Amino acid sequence: MVSCATNSLVDRPLIGITMGDPLGVGPEVIVKSLADENLRCRARFVVFGLHEVLEVAADQAEINPFWWREPFDPQLRVSSGVLVADFDELQPVRTNGERGPDALAGHASFRFVEEGARLLREGLLDALVTGPICKQSWHLANHRFHGHTDFLTRCFDTRRINMLFVAGRLRVALASDHVPLFELRNRFTIGLVHQPIDLLDQALRAWFGIAAPRIGVLGLNPHAGEDGLLGDEERRIIIPALDMARNAGLRVSGPLAPDTAFVPEVWQRFDGLVAMYHDQGLIPIKAQAFESAAQLTLGLDRIRASPAHGTAFDIAGKNRARHGSMRAAIELAIELAGAACRQRGAPTVAR
Amino acid sequence: MVSCATNSLVDRPLIGITMGDPLGVGPEVIVKSLADENLRCRARFVVFGLHEVLEVAADQAEINPFWWREPFDPQLRVSSGVLVADFDELQPVRTNGERGPDALAGHASFRFVEEGARLLREGLLDALVTGPICKQSWHLANHRFHGHTDFLTRCFDTRRINMLFVAGRLRVALASDHVPLFELRNRFTIGLVHQPIDLLDQALRAWFGIAAPRIGVLGLNPHAGEDGLLGDEERRIIIPALDMARNAGLRVSGPLAPDTAFVPEVWQRFDGLVAMYHDQGLIPIKAQAFESAAQLTLGLDRIRASPAHGTAFDIAGKNRARHGSMRAAIELAIELAGAACRQRGAPTVAR
Repeated sequence: MVSCATNSLVDRPLIGITMGDPLGVGPEVIVKSLADENLRCRARFVVFGLHEVLEVAADQAEINPFWWREPFDPQLRVSSGVLVADFDELQPVRTNGERGPDALAGHASFRFVEEGARLLREGLLDALVTGPICKQSWHLANHRFHGHTDFLTRCFDTRRINMLFVAGRLRVALASDHVPLFELRNRFTIGLVHQPIDLLDQALRAWFGIAAPRIGVLGLNPHAGEDGLLGDEERRIIIPALDMARNAGLRVSGPLAPDTAFVPEVWQRFDGLVAMYHDQGLIPIKAQAFESAAQLTLGLDRIRASPAHGTAFDIAGKNRARHGSMRAAIELAIELAGAACRQRGAPTVAR
Repeated sequence: MVSCATNSLVDRPLIGITMGDPLGVGPEVIVKSLADENLRCRARFVVFGLHEVLEVAADQAEINPFWWREPFDPQLRVSSGVLVADFDELQPVRTNGERGPDALAGHASFRFVEEGARLLREGLLDALVTGPICKQSWHLANHRFHGHTDFLTRCFDTRRINMLFVAGRLRVALASDHVPLFELRNRFTIGLVHQPIDLLDQALRAWFGIAAPRIGVLGLNPHAGEDGLLGDEERRIIIPALDMARNAGLRVSGPLAPDTAFVPEVWQRFDGLVAMYHDQGLIPIKAQAFESAAQLTLGLDRIRASPAHGTAFDIAGKNRARHGSMRAAIELAIELAGAACRQRGAPTVAR
């Protein structure tokens, strides 16, 4: 890794970070992550949020403020360090009572994402890391999106989006996410399974620098259907999706028996896995690496990362949150932004 | 633990072990497990199997035979050590070719289970450990059971059976097992969820000596349905099952969000968990403890354990199988048989 001093500051990637719900753990885990100078010197940062809320979080954690504050300005200029782009247009959010869904907080967290995503789309940010939001608060504030993914899908005008979870070398893309388990039956198509294989392959090449990624695709049923004895979705849907990918030149294997796919000597044979549903992928990711797993969005053509946890209202504002997952998301954003810059032949970034 | 010498040999529990499919890894992992004198001195053992096949496995693993052989006799007498009850009634199984489903092997493995289960039911064994069988081989041999559980259900004339997986202090009972995932919708009832809670509670009290077990019950949907936004099975089925259990005085919590239930600081708050479907429970068990997880059968009123893996035909006969899971199953059987004996006020067993 090149030390900071050898890079001029403006060569470093610019990472946007949205604060997330002001009543959740977002402010706290962002402040705790960026408190580490070694992390700060690897990039430039702009935090879309509320200065005062971040200050309280820093104070509780006994962290000296390391940022400077400016009112949010769409013509972003960050030459070094951490800028807090303060949305002083917003009404103050009451942080001293019970914490939960709240319209003012929902509107605030929506505005942070709205501006962050716009700047990401316009190429003014090299990557965006989003703090956790509360969907119900968005609804209370009349922002009718089912969370980040839904908003980003529309903002980037794409229909191809999948979640990818990264915990060290274990990388798991989800073919479906927030769908009631049995309702998935009505949406379970060859396209649904093929898309994340395709997007994961692209991401592994472009962002992770793997020339010919090996991708393992899980089955849906126990023992991957056991040759049709335990379900026919493997035969009808997953195997045809694998064939499509194979015909396009991808190195895919599967359907893997889900219960052994996450045994280390199995997953380590692959550069990435594709899980069929939310808990099939997230149970093992969180069981193995709850504090170091981060999420990436596949299909945006831009780098967006986030921690693998939610607002955690129950422990928010108490200086009890652990920031491993947010830190992992920020680190991933820096690394991938660097890789993306190198690929475009852009000036070198701080690594 | 009391050393062997202080116990008369016949006070030790008698553990039956069925060899499983002669073409699978069963013979090998049994021989490797019992090769350890420290394990052997904790109980008496009878292996239902084929002497010659066990001999080959021992030879390949360079283990000196530690057992004596007798033709199988229903009037079992084992005063110490390991007896191989040799089924010389059976036609020899060809072990030197390609390994896979085979009628002769299927009939052999069925006969071992048939006799082992009968002796367990009659109280002549303190516990039974079953080596892995191949369902297709049973079918080829015209034994029309869908595996061990199906056979044991009929043999013990019970309809209440659930699988429990044990890996150290992590204990996970399955509400359903070998069911195609989407077909589970048609079987997902309050009774289906309540039964494993009830059986797990009994097992934790009787076998594991926990006076008032704390049981965590998982949700079915992502985020346990998120208050109905992501599925209504939690509200319609799981919560009523929890209420039933609570009304009967059980200490139950849930529905837990599946993706965080297996984070150590969550599961460690419980003495046991109940998972809704096969992979929800088995993915984390195998990811965390592939080599030390064992299975127990709930609902038989007798102790039956088994390893968490199958026949593994691809590596069988090559001295490549690891015996951690079989060893864990045997150790669990010894421990629980001891606990059961103490509960009945039987003479002390070797612990």
